[in-house]
Amino acid sequence: MSVTAAAGFRAAGVAAGLKADAKDVALVVNDGPLHHASAVFTTNTVAAAPVLWSRQVISDGRADAVILNSGGANACTGAPGFADTHTTAEEVAEKLTASGRDVSATDVLVCSTGLIGERLDMPALLSGVEGAVQGLSAEQHAAADAAEAIRTTDTVSKTETRSGSGFTVGGMAKGAGMLAPGMATMLAVVTTDAVISQEDLDAALREAVRISFNRADSDGCMSTNDTVIALASGANSESDPSGVDLPEFQVALNEVCSSLAAQLIADAEGAHHEIAIRTVGALTEEQAEEAGRAVARSNLFKTAIFGRDPNWGRILSAVGTTDVDFDPTTIDVAVNGVWICRGGGIGEDRDLVDLSGRDVEVVIDLKAGETEATILTNDLTHDYVHENSAYSS
Amino acid sequence: MSVTAAAGFRAAGVAAGLKADAKDVALVVNDGPLHHASAVFTTNTVAAAPVLWSRQVISDGRADAVILNSGGANACTGAPGFADTHTTAEEVAEKLTASGRDVSATDVLVCSTGLIGERLDMPALLSGVEGAVQGLSAEQHAAADAAEAIRTTDTVSKTETRSGSGFTVGGMAKGAGMLAPGMATMLAVVTTDAVISQEDLDAALREAVRISFNRADSDGCMSTNDTVIALASGANSESDPSGVDLPEFQVALNEVCSSLAAQLIADAEGAHHEIAIRTVGALTEEQAEEAGRAVARSNLFKTAIFGRDPNWGRILSAVGTTDVDFDPTTIDVAVNGVWICRGGGIGEDRDLVDLSGRDVEVVIDLKAGETEATILTNDLTHDYVHENSAYSS
Repeated sequence: MSVTAAAGFRAAGVAAGLKADAKDVALVVNDGPLHHASAVFTTNTVAAAPVLWSRQVISDGRADAVILNSGGANACTGAPGFADTHTTAEEVAEKLTASGRDVSATDVLVCSTGLIGERLDMPALLSGVEGAVQGLSAEQHAAADAAEAIRTTDTVSKTETRSGSGFTVGGMAKGAGMLAPGMATMLAVVTTDAVISQEDLDAALREAVRISFNRADSDGCMSTNDTVIALASGANSESDPSGVDLPEFQVALNEVCSSLAAQLIADAEGAHHEIAIRTVGALTEEQAEEAGRAVARSNLFKTAIFGRDPNWGRILSAVGTTDVDFDPTTIDVAVNGVWICRGGGIGEDRDLVDLSGRDVEVVIDLKAGETEATILTNDLTHDYVHENSAYSS
Repeated sequence: MSVTAAAGFRAAGVAAGLKADAKDVALVVNDGPLHHASAVFTTNTVAAAPVLWSRQVISDGRADAVILNSGGANACTGAPGFADTHTTAEEVAEKLTASGRDVSATDVLVCSTGLIGERLDMPALLSGVEGAVQGLSAEQHAAADAAEAIRTTDTVSKTETRSGSGFTVGGMAKGAGMLAPGMATMLAVVTTDAVISQEDLDAALREAVRISFNRADSDGCMSTNDTVIALASGANSESDPSGVDLPEFQVALNEVCSSLAAQLIADAEGAHHEIAIRTVGALTEEQAEEAGRAVARSNLFKTAIFGRDPNWGRILSAVGTTDVDFDPTTIDVAVNGVWICRGGGIGEDRDLVDLSGRDVEVVIDLKAGETEATILTNDLTHDYVHENSAYSS
């Protein structure tokens, strides 16, 4: 059900001709009664036009709709590109208002994904907006269509749903390359019918993104379009009018975001292995993250895993490039349960490590403290090189 | 001539059996009268045993000899590995002393390169030391043998020589993967017969490394063994006894180091293109470096160049992840002379860019200041993935 699992939401996904023979425009509408919204955007200085627009829309904490397109990122397109985004939001507001929902363009979030540096085909996109508004539905198929329409090189749609006491959280995401923290290069929309204030929704989203999307690091490349949006309708008929149980809501939101992040990593371009790098015994959570991220960004480590080679020397070498506190003579490293590095040197027999499956778990014990963090990444493969060298040609 | 081009130096390169059917032990001896030495080492916390040893040797600014081996990095080998390095230095000192040069083990620098996490074959290495001492010569073939013996996956030896008023500078280097700043993952030995103080030699080496090896960033991976060594003999018969002309010496040393760095990049594992990323109009030299380095580390940019795709969006996106001062609406980018990005948007026709040759020049004009810096890197290819996934198996 994803984005229409929570009460108060309708969605649609249509083919507007931005891509050949595929759905490419998605719309999610929050029918209230609440219209609380929060969003986290890329920190890239080169932010796409829809990011610049949506930052303004979200500033008052309200949004009625999100329009998303694949088939073009509308990034590095200058003032004309920003005008295109503005026009798109105006079109959504106008068509929704014509259909009976009084919506202002300044309450319409816009997301785009695809190639950088090209203008969007606006006649096609605007016709898609019209079709999407006409197709809006709270049914499951509509949410599935929306999730499908935001795909670029994704081979599958990514959706997740959780329910709790008087609330449901559902979400969809896209992203299969340019995945990196701050944030995973991606778009995601999460909806909930919880009765929750805008401030609490915002805090919950930031916490969930920090430990989910921001710890998915496929190829270290941060995009110009990354956006995660949360919308709350307050429409759950069984909800406590005084407000949702916040800790329970946070857990559900974390689970939805973590599941979507894991699905992104599992579908990363050309990957043969999904790798979880769990750093334990760290002095701080930030240091655990930093150590894991350094390993996740090492092309030598990532090619070794592709070659089914448990090359712990490349793991130590990557951790050593950071400022993380650890003693190189006491650090331990395990790959898929085998402690092949003990005390910074040779441990158990590396031939015991089985890397034939897709899932790889690396555990790095820094022996410096009590905290841990897990970074998700992929191996670096021939298919990654192929897909990314051929993307725009 | 490389390391024996300068007067006062002898060298040798022999096959000791650390690698199959190839030279693997090199020796460079400074016969003086000066024995000034300086070195720059990896900043990796996980430093190999020979780095730990050589840091102690260099602390008094004197070195008589450098022993180098390929076929094993002696990294992550703990106390036994450090003892192996110590034993190697003792053997060099003993054999040199037996041959008539009174040398202390604490004046013998040691460098190792190859796989991490495996002990060296010490009987083989020690027999190589004996053979190297016996083979020492100031002839060109000896320097060529030494340069050959330090190769790992290098397909060619890297050497360079420059002469000035009363001095010669010669050098050799190895490195064809794990090339990254702080410093390029590599070994290099540079010799000179200039009359120069240890302090001036040290300052000149650090400046030369900063603008050469530290700006060669092939795959972003910093090794455990990086070492650049400079030795000065003061043996040039035409030298001014009061000392070399320092600015002239600096230029020659810069040229030798820059040439060696460029040779490393040109031989990087699996590369199809050598890419110079020149960032101009930067507020500071550090920011110019940071911008270029971000692009050099973008796997998406590097795969695009492999695919002969002048994907300027990926360049802007990479620069945007940094803290470098620039306005995303005024930045210009040229690839091989074509300004395909103007004012942060679409510029000249990208089809005008010719990427069929090996050399690629990217110019990024930040429009924020007056300084510039150039980072050297490679494309990311199928061959890189293949070589690095198969390296140890």
